[in-house]
Amino acid sequence: MFTIKNHLEIEDGQLTIGGIPAVEIVKQYGSPVYVSNESRIRDNFRRYKDAFPDADLYYAAKANSNLTLFKIMASEGAGADVFSDGELYLALMAGIPRDKILFNGNSKSDRELLMAVKTGVRVSLDSIDELRTLSRIAKKEKKIVDVSFRVNPDVSPQTHPKISTGLKASKFGIPHEEAVHAYKEALDLPGVNPIGIHCHIGSQILEISPFSEAMNKMMDLVEQISRLGVDVKFVDMGSGLGIPYEKGKAVPSPKDLADLILPIFKSRCRDEGISPKLILEPGRYIMGDSTLLLTTVNTMKEAAKKFVGVDAGFNLLIRPAMYDSYHLAVVANKADKKPEEIYSIVGPICESGDILAHDRELPRIEKGDIIAFFDAGAYGFSMSSQYNGRTRCAELLINDGMIDVIRKAESYDDLLANQLVPSRFL
Amino acid sequence: MFTIKNHLEIEDGQLTIGGIPAVEIVKQYGSPVYVSNESRIRDNFRRYKDAFPDADLYYAAKANSNLTLFKIMASEGAGADVFSDGELYLALMAGIPRDKILFNGNSKSDRELLMAVKTGVRVSLDSIDELRTLSRIAKKEKKIVDVSFRVNPDVSPQTHPKISTGLKASKFGIPHEEAVHAYKEALDLPGVNPIGIHCHIGSQILEISPFSEAMNKMMDLVEQISRLGVDVKFVDMGSGLGIPYEKGKAVPSPKDLADLILPIFKSRCRDEGISPKLILEPGRYIMGDSTLLLTTVNTMKEAAKKFVGVDAGFNLLIRPAMYDSYHLAVVANKADKKPEEIYSIVGPICESGDILAHDRELPRIEKGDIIAFFDAGAYGFSMSSQYNGRTRCAELLINDGMIDVIRKAESYDDLLANQLVPSRFL
Ligand SMILES: Cc1ncc(COP(=O)(O)O)c(C=O)c1O
Ligand SMILES: Cc1ncc(COP(=O)(O)O)c(C=O)c1O
Repeated sequence: MFTIKNHLEIEDGQLTIGGIPAVEIVKQYGSPVYVSNESRIRDNFRRYKDAFPDADLYYAAKANSNLTLFKIMASEGAGADVFSDGELYLALMAGIPRDKILFNGNSKSDRELLMAVKTGVRVSLDSIDELRTLSRIAKKEKKIVDVSFRVNPDVSPQTHPKISTGLKASKFGIPHEEAVHAYKEALDLPGVNPIGIHCHIGSQILEISPFSEAMNKMMDLVEQISRLGVDVKFVDMGSGLGIPYEKGKAVPSPKDLADLILPIFKSRCRDEGISPKLILEPGRYIMGDSTLLLTTVNTMKEAAKKFVGVDAGFNLLIRPAMYDSYHLAVVANKADKKPEEIYSIVGPICESGDILAHDRELPRIEKGDIIAFFDAGAYGFSMSSQYNGRTRCAELLINDGMIDVIRKAESYDDLLANQLVPSRFL
Repeated sequence: MFTIKNHLEIEDGQLTIGGIPAVEIVKQYGSPVYVSNESRIRDNFRRYKDAFPDADLYYAAKANSNLTLFKIMASEGAGADVFSDGELYLALMAGIPRDKILFNGNSKSDRELLMAVKTGVRVSLDSIDELRTLSRIAKKEKKIVDVSFRVNPDVSPQTHPKISTGLKASKFGIPHEEAVHAYKEALDLPGVNPIGIHCHIGSQILEISPFSEAMNKMMDLVEQISRLGVDVKFVDMGSGLGIPYEKGKAVPSPKDLADLILPIFKSRCRDEGISPKLILEPGRYIMGDSTLLLTTVNTMKEAAKKFVGVDAGFNLLIRPAMYDSYHLAVVANKADKKPEEIYSIVGPICESGDILAHDRELPRIEKGDIIAFFDAGAYGFSMSSQYNGRTRCAELLINDGMIDVIRKAESYDDLLANQLVPSRFL
């Protein structure tokens, strides 16, 4: 038995997760299928928490909003970063305390803001326009909502442009030059109580120095708004810590991030004589490496390349097609075999871009082999679709050698769900 | 009253669809919402059919697999190009005749091939490996399946690389050099009856000359396989005709395509003394321009750009984020107003790439305005997801001044559908 990556082990040539061979899982539960390892999720959370013992961790629901996984977060004491009415609903269902839910988003509808007001969660405002809308809604409901502003710190992390959110040109947040003005208005308006400040510079960040720049810019603002009279109770630095999708790649840890930003945070709080809570919103780091997407080889073809056709495509895992992301692919039933051929692993979707893995050196593959895509726990199922009429697959959770189905595979009925056919067509 | 684009008209400053103001539709049915115009769908289909009176049109379900819209196709006499078990199920539900359904796909599972065998539809095979699998399955079921091969003609249409499917390096089809060999094997194997040939060179093609190259290459193969003894009953040229997403852009019509490829097809059939059916598989051309995605302005922000935050993002329309596609955006309630400002219209999804429209000159926009995205009928709802915990919106169909709900908006229950929580979490 040896470890291939993180918690994932190979035993007698078989890839296992939580002690169970991937092949057995597929035999019992079908293919394709998402499988998460509960202990890895908890370990990831605790490692993050250990690095930031005094901070609150608000789990970013967007990474994976499966209700059971969300309940694991709740049981670990996490708060939640939610980005829509649906995510708020799931966070409440999962039992996340209301005062640890931050409703983020750059374009919330009035209905969503009303839901935030009624459920009594905190709201991170994206603009002065939204501040005014929320004030009006809260006043009408005779409620006072705790708010922060999402500030665009204008720092540039080295990540994919589609997920780099803290650049000046980004759609998120108010420009940091205008933040003080926004807080001034918030202090004056009814129904809203500014108590925090928020930023998020991007996702899958592997070079962490931009976080110290962002931390400093945020603390500059904390200083200024404190002087205005804002009692700053939290500083939410968002998230973005990357994970090593490539085997053996060295990446910064939560501890590295803590060593970088905690001294800045603490010294600047001390200087200012304030003691706000630090909040972080990890998503990918918690869920990413906990989960495999298991697929079955349908067909083999030698054309311009050696193509391996599997039963999952960008309907289930869109990251490779959308962001050119890399996911390690392992032939689960030949996990100790030497690489012999170079393959491209493609899904069943009708687009040339539906390629899950390009030019990978792998053992000789045959029809029926099980291919595991690693690190599929974040932005995997949560971005899945029914494109090409494909039903979405099941999600499983492994704990203590036991498997629970946490989402059943869809059936054709789920393609027809909510559809109505006008009587003239019957 | 004047026409803004195709069937879409402006009356008293209001954008209308099928005679009904967009604003009224949103008032009555909520926002965001997809709205299709039945007469436009039928007109598009008939225009295509008029250009190819002797051909069979197999509607490409992937473009939009709403059951009611599929039934419109059935009522027009269309066949269906299906790419998965789910699309086959929907085609059968819609009442498409079995002998006019072609089961395509580069990576079909054994279960899908068995479903094809059992339902008696035709199968387009992507490789010799798949041929052998199908033969084995059909033989076991004591059935004979009519098949074609999807051939990769190695022509390069000028379109987005993610949807250019007929290049040599593409994952689709067997290399055309190997096609004859494949048919030879098909003639010898039990359970399969080769009766056609198939290709598809890409989608959103605006420069049609590659179609004549593909037609010639296919007819070269038809000649060769006829001589082998294959009774070629159909030649399926796939689809790919683009539509003018940009207002006023001149694009080739089905008639232009017919003028280009029919003479080649007819003369080569005459030379060979055969009379196969021509099949085409239009998707985008039929559905694309029939449908608007109506959204509501949630919030306005002036940052690096003037941002308009609406209530739909790439959860509902992924083409701009995934392919940098352009969709015309019109402020439905100010449709006759002069452009005054340059706006970027962004959705509520937590990614920087969630921008539906970049830098558009539009009338002054305010919260509550309704923005219509044009040409959203193909690869719109069919690629939608619940990302960020967003419920998918309703689909409406307008016919004769009446509105039918053809898919109800999802509720939070739909986010929880099929989810199971292990008892230890309760
Ligand atoms: C505001 C906010 N917080 C947290 C996250 C989670 O980021 P990550 O998954 O990189 O930890 C995101 C991701 O986009 C985000 O937009
Ligand atoms: C095999 C096949 N046929 C037909 C189509 C439909 O193409 P379009 O929507 O461009 O008409 C596609 C689209 O990808 C396809 O893959």
